[in-house]
Amino acid sequence: MKNEEIKVVFEPSGRSVYVLPGTPLLEAAGRAGIVLQTPCGGLGTCGKCKVQIVGESEPSLACQTRVDKTMVVDVPMESRFDSRQQILVTDSGETGELSPVVRKVPFVLDPPSQVDARSDMARLYDALGDFVVAPSDLIRTVPIFMRRNEWKGTAVLIADRLIALEEGDTTAEAYGVAFDLGTTTVVGTLFDLTTGIEKGVASRMNAQISHGDDVISRIQKIRETPGALTQLQEAVLGTVNDILDTLVSQAGVAAKHIYEVVVAGNSTMQQILAGYDPSALGEVPFVQVFDKATTLSANRLGLRVNAAAELYLFPQVGGFVGGDTVAGMVAARLDRQEAPVLFVDIGTNGEIVLANGDKLLSSSTAAGPAFEGARIKQGMRATTGAVEKVIITDDVVLNVIGNTRPIGLCGTALIDAVAALLTVGIIDDTGRILGPDEVPDSVSDMLKQRLIAGEHDFNFELASAEESGNDDPVYLWQRDVRELQLASGAIRAGINILLRKAGLDAKDLGSVLLAGAFGNFIRRNHARRIGLLPSLPTEHIRFIGNAASLGAKLVLLSKNERRYATEIRHKVEHVDLSMDPEFQMEFGMAMMFPGPEADLL
Amino acid sequence: MKNEEIKVVFEPSGRSVYVLPGTPLLEAAGRAGIVLQTPCGGLGTCGKCKVQIVGESEPSLACQTRVDKTMVVDVPMESRFDSRQQILVTDSGETGELSPVVRKVPFVLDPPSQVDARSDMARLYDALGDFVVAPSDLIRTVPIFMRRNEWKGTAVLIADRLIALEEGDTTAEAYGVAFDLGTTTVVGTLFDLTTGIEKGVASRMNAQISHGDDVISRIQKIRETPGALTQLQEAVLGTVNDILDTLVSQAGVAAKHIYEVVVAGNSTMQQILAGYDPSALGEVPFVQVFDKATTLSANRLGLRVNAAAELYLFPQVGGFVGGDTVAGMVAARLDRQEAPVLFVDIGTNGEIVLANGDKLLSSSTAAGPAFEGARIKQGMRATTGAVEKVIITDDVVLNVIGNTRPIGLCGTALIDAVAALLTVGIIDDTGRILGPDEVPDSVSDMLKQRLIAGEHDFNFELASAEESGNDDPVYLWQRDVRELQLASGAIRAGINILLRKAGLDAKDLGSVLLAGAFGNFIRRNHARRIGLLPSLPTEHIRFIGNAASLGAKLVLLSKNERRYATEIRHKVEHVDLSMDPEFQMEFGMAMMFPGPEADLL
Repeated sequence: MKNEEIKVVFEPSGRSVYVLPGTPLLEAAGRAGIVLQTPCGGLGTCGKCKVQIVGESEPSLACQTRVDKTMVVDVPMESRFDSRQQILVTDSGETGELSPVVRKVPFVLDPPSQVDARSDMARLYDALGDFVVAPSDLIRTVPIFMRRNEWKGTAVLIADRLIALEEGDTTAEAYGVAFDLGTTTVVGTLFDLTTGIEKGVASRMNAQISHGDDVISRIQKIRETPGALTQLQEAVLGTVNDILDTLVSQAGVAAKHIYEVVVAGNSTMQQILAGYDPSALGEVPFVQVFDKATTLSANRLGLRVNAAAELYLFPQVGGFVGGDTVAGMVAARLDRQEAPVLFVDIGTNGEIVLANGDKLLSSSTAAGPAFEGARIKQGMRATTGAVEKVIITDDVVLNVIGNTRPIGLCGTALIDAVAALLTVGIIDDTGRILGPDEVPDSVSDMLKQRLIAGEHDFNFELASAEESGNDDPVYLWQRDVRELQLASGAIRAGINILLRKAGLDAKDLGSVLLAGAFGNFIRRNHARRIGLLPSLPTEHIRFIGNAASLGAKLVLLSKNERRYATEIRHKVEHVDLSMDPEFQMEFGMAMMFPGPEADLL
Repeated sequence: MKNEEIKVVFEPSGRSVYVLPGTPLLEAAGRAGIVLQTPCGGLGTCGKCKVQIVGESEPSLACQTRVDKTMVVDVPMESRFDSRQQILVTDSGETGELSPVVRKVPFVLDPPSQVDARSDMARLYDALGDFVVAPSDLIRTVPIFMRRNEWKGTAVLIADRLIALEEGDTTAEAYGVAFDLGTTTVVGTLFDLTTGIEKGVASRMNAQISHGDDVISRIQKIRETPGALTQLQEAVLGTVNDILDTLVSQAGVAAKHIYEVVVAGNSTMQQILAGYDPSALGEVPFVQVFDKATTLSANRLGLRVNAAAELYLFPQVGGFVGGDTVAGMVAARLDRQEAPVLFVDIGTNGEIVLANGDKLLSSSTAAGPAFEGARIKQGMRATTGAVEKVIITDDVVLNVIGNTRPIGLCGTALIDAVAALLTVGIIDDTGRILGPDEVPDSVSDMLKQRLIAGEHDFNFELASAEESGNDDPVYLWQRDVRELQLASGAIRAGINILLRKAGLDAKDLGSVLLAGAFGNFIRRNHARRIGLLPSLPTEHIRFIGNAASLGAKLVLLSKNERRYATEIRHKVEHVDLSMDPEFQMEFGMAMMFPGPEADLL
C-alpha cells in the first residue's frame, strides 16, 4: 500500500482536497464541492471549465489537466456550474432573470388630505399595484405604522401577498435561504435576493440521525412510537435553525430580513419537516401525503427568520421520488434535452429519471445503504480514516480521507475495489472472490497473497494490520461484494425497466447525469465496470453536482423557475418498480457483473 | 289627548303593533318590521303587497287598506320585500341563484393501491376539482382522517379553499349568519346555506353602548384611552357571540356547522370589530383603514362558530359611508334603476347615495342624534313610553309605544309634531314656535292653551302632567325644533349638493328610497313637510326596510351578489361635504322649513 496524496487548494473558496497523482483537476474540484461547467462532457471541446493554476501564465481546462503537484487553482465564477451565471444562462443558452417571489417596494405615500381621503389601505394598494392583498393581521398594523412613519416605509411582498411593512428604505436587505434537506446532511445557502449573490453556506448533520440512519427506520419509528413524528420534526427544525443561525451570524445579516426558505428534500424529509405523517411511505403502495408544491408559515414552524416568512416545499412525484428529485430535474432542465437523458441520484435510495423529450419516467429503488458504507462489514461514511479510492495494479494503492491510517471503506472505494478486482480477474462475473488457485495467471503474487481464506469463501485484504497501522487489517469481504451487487443491481434494474418502458436502448442515451454528493465522487468508469451504469463512453456520463441544492437556489431566486418546477413535475410519470412483472428478472440479471467488454469503452 | 290604539297581528311571524285608526296597513306592517313589496310606490297598481285579513273572503292590498279594527293579517312570503323570493327575483325581474361561497362536497375516494398510488392530497384534489387549495394545517390532518374514515367524508370549501374535512356525509348541515352591525343594535340572521331558508333571527343591543352612544364618542374614547380599542372590540364580539349562541340554540343547529359570518356595518363598527383602529375617522379628513371587502378568521376573533369559519366585512366607500351603505346599495340594485334615485339611510349619521344610471355619488352627514331622540330635551329611543306619533287637528292625539303613559318623544314623533305645527301655523318657516297672539286665527283655543311661555320663547305642551299621568308634562321645546332643523338641514343640504354635482334637480328623481330602521317608521309626508326630503309625490318615496341587513343576506347566499358588492362599490364617488364651498350656504338654507306648498303634494 502506498499513499502519495497531493494537496489542491481552490480559490476563492479556499477549499482543499488531497488526491492521487494523475487525478483530473475536474474530479479534484468536484471532490472539493466545486462543480465546473462541462457541457461537452469533459472532452476539452467546449472550453467552459477554464481555471487558472496559480504560477502558470495561461489558463487551463480542468478536464484536460491532471494533478501532478501541489497546486492552488483559481476558479472563475463563470466556470462554475452552480454560479449565478448559471442561473441566468443555462446549458441550453436560455437567459433567465433574477425574479424572486419576495419583493421589497419602498413607498412614500401622500398623507390623507381633504382632497384625497382614500383609506389607508387604498393608499398603500395604489402604491403597490393591483392584485396585492394583505392579511387582516397586517391591515390592523397599518394605521399606526403610517402615522408613526410619516407614510413612508418599505413593503415586503411574497408574490402578491403583502407580508410586512418596515420602517425606512430597507430594500437592500432581502435574503432567502435554499435548503438541501438530506436524510443525513442538511445544507443551507443564504442568498441576497436583490443581487442573487450567495452570502454563505452552512451544513449540519440532520439531527434526526439519532432516530435512525435511513428514511425507512425513521418511518418505522413514527409508525410505532406515539409522539415520534413531533420528535423527528423538532429534530430537523432544530438543525434548520442551527444552520440559519450560522448563516446570519457569518454573513452579518439580520434574521428578520430572511423572508423565504426554500426546501428540497426527499418525500420523507419534506413531510416530516411539515409535520405530515409519512407512515404511508412505510408500506406498499408507498403513498405520499401531498405532491403539489406546498407553502407553510415559517413562524408556525418556529424558524428563526422574519415572522411573516414562508417556507416552500418542492412538489413531489410519488413514492420516494420527492422534492429533491424535482429540484434536480429543474437544475438539469431534464425536459429540454435533445437526446434521451438519464438522471441518477444515488444515495440510500436511488432515484432515477429517464427523460425522452418532454416525457419523463421516474422511479426509486431501495438501493440500500451500501453506497453510504452501511451494511459493509468495515464500511463507514466518507470521513477521516475512510478509504475513498482504491487503485489496483500489481499491488494496492489506497487514498485515505484526511491522509491518516485507513479505518474502513466508504462507498466510492467499495466500487473502486470491486471494479479493479473484476478487471484483474480476482472477482468473477457472478461476484465471487476467487481463491489464489483460481485467479488468472496475470494476477501478481502480491495480490494473490491478499486473498485470505474464510470459512466458505475468500476475502481480499486491502491493507494488512501492518499496513494500516491499526490493530485490524482492512478487508473487502465477500459479503460486501454481495451487498454491492444488491445495491447496484437495484439501480441498474430500475434503469433498464425505465428504458424498456420508454422503448429505448442504453445506446440511445445522449447522456447520463450523476447527481448528489455520492454521484459527485464516484469514478465513472468504475460505476460502469460494475454495471451500475449502462455501457456508455465515459464522456457521456456527466457529474452535475448537488442538483437538488441548485434547483432549490433557482426556485428561491426566480418565480419562472418555480413555475417550471410545477410544470416539469407534471411531465413525470412515476413507475412503481415493484409493480413491474419483469422487475425480479431484471434485478437478478443486473446483479451479475458485466464481462470485460465493459472496460473497453 | 286621546289614545285609541288598535292592535294588528301579522302572521306567520306573530309580530304585533298598535296603531291609530286610519293608519294604512302597509305602514302598520312596516312598523312591525315587515316590509312589503311596493314597486308602484303604494299606489295600488302593482298588486304586490297582497295580504289576507283573517275573516275576510278576499285578499286585500296593504297599501289600500286602513286599520279600522283589531285584525290578524296573513302575509304571504311573496309579498315580502326581504323574502327569499326577493333574493331570487329582484324588483327588476332578474333571477339570481343560491350560490353561497361555502360549499360542501361529499366524497368517497378509492383507497391507494399499487395501480393507483397517488398522494393523499392528489386523491382529494382530484375529487374536489381543479384550483382547490388546502392550507398546511389541514393537509397535516389528511392522512389520519382518510385512514380512520375509510377514505369517505365531506369536504367544506370556501370558494376554492378547502377549510375542513368532516366525517360522514354532512352536506345537509351548512349554515351561515348575516349580521347587520349597528351602532346601537346588532341583528343576526341564521341561514341554511343548502336551501337558502332563514332559520332564525336574534338581536341585541351593541354592548359598546356603555362606551358611548354614537360612533364619534366611541372613536374619541379609543383616541384617548389606551386599551379602549381592545375593550370595544371585545364588547361587540361578545354581542355577536351572544347572538350566535341564541341562533344555534333556537334553531337546534350545531355551532360547528356555521362556516361563514357576513357583516354589514358602518365604517366605525366594521373597523372596531376587526380590531382596526378607527382613530382617523375622528378628525378631518375622516380616513378609513380599508375599503376593499376584507376576510378575517372567525376563530382568531374568538367567534363561537366552526374553527375554520371566515368573517366577511363589506367593502366601504369612504369616511362614514361604510359597509352598511354598500350592503344597502346591493339590496336596492342602486346602479340598475332607470330614473335617478336617491337612497337615504337616516340614523346618527345620514348616509346618502344618489344614483344616476351607474354613476353613484355618496356622502354622509353628521345628522346628529336628534332622530334617535338624543339632544331632544325629553327625547328617548323608540321604546315603551315613547310618543311615536303625533296627530294635530283641533287638539293633539298621541300614539305611545306599549300603550302606556307618555314619557318622552322619539324621532318620528318629533318630525310629526313639527310638521303638524308647521301646517297649522304654530311654527313658522324659520322654526320659531309662535306665541298665542301670533298664531293664525284658524288655530283652535285648545292648541293655543298648549303654547307655554319660556324665558325667551314658547314651547308646545304635547301632554300636560294630567294628560300624561306622570309628574311631568311632555313638551316640544323650542330648542328641540332647532335640533331638528340642524339634523334635517344637514341631510337635505347633502341631498342638494349631490343633486347639483350630478347636474340634476329634485324633480328628476324617479324615487327616494328610505332605508334603515328609522326610515321604516318615518311618515313620508311629514319628512317632506319639514324639508328633510325633497318635494316629491309621496308615492315616489319608498320604504325599503333594513336594506343593509338584506344586502348582508344576499352576499351570504350568493357569490354573484358578493362580486356585485365589490362592483357597485367601485361605481361610487365619495363626496366630502365639508369640502364643498357651497355646503355652509346650502346647510343654512336647508335649515329653513319649506312653505305651505310642501303640503300640497
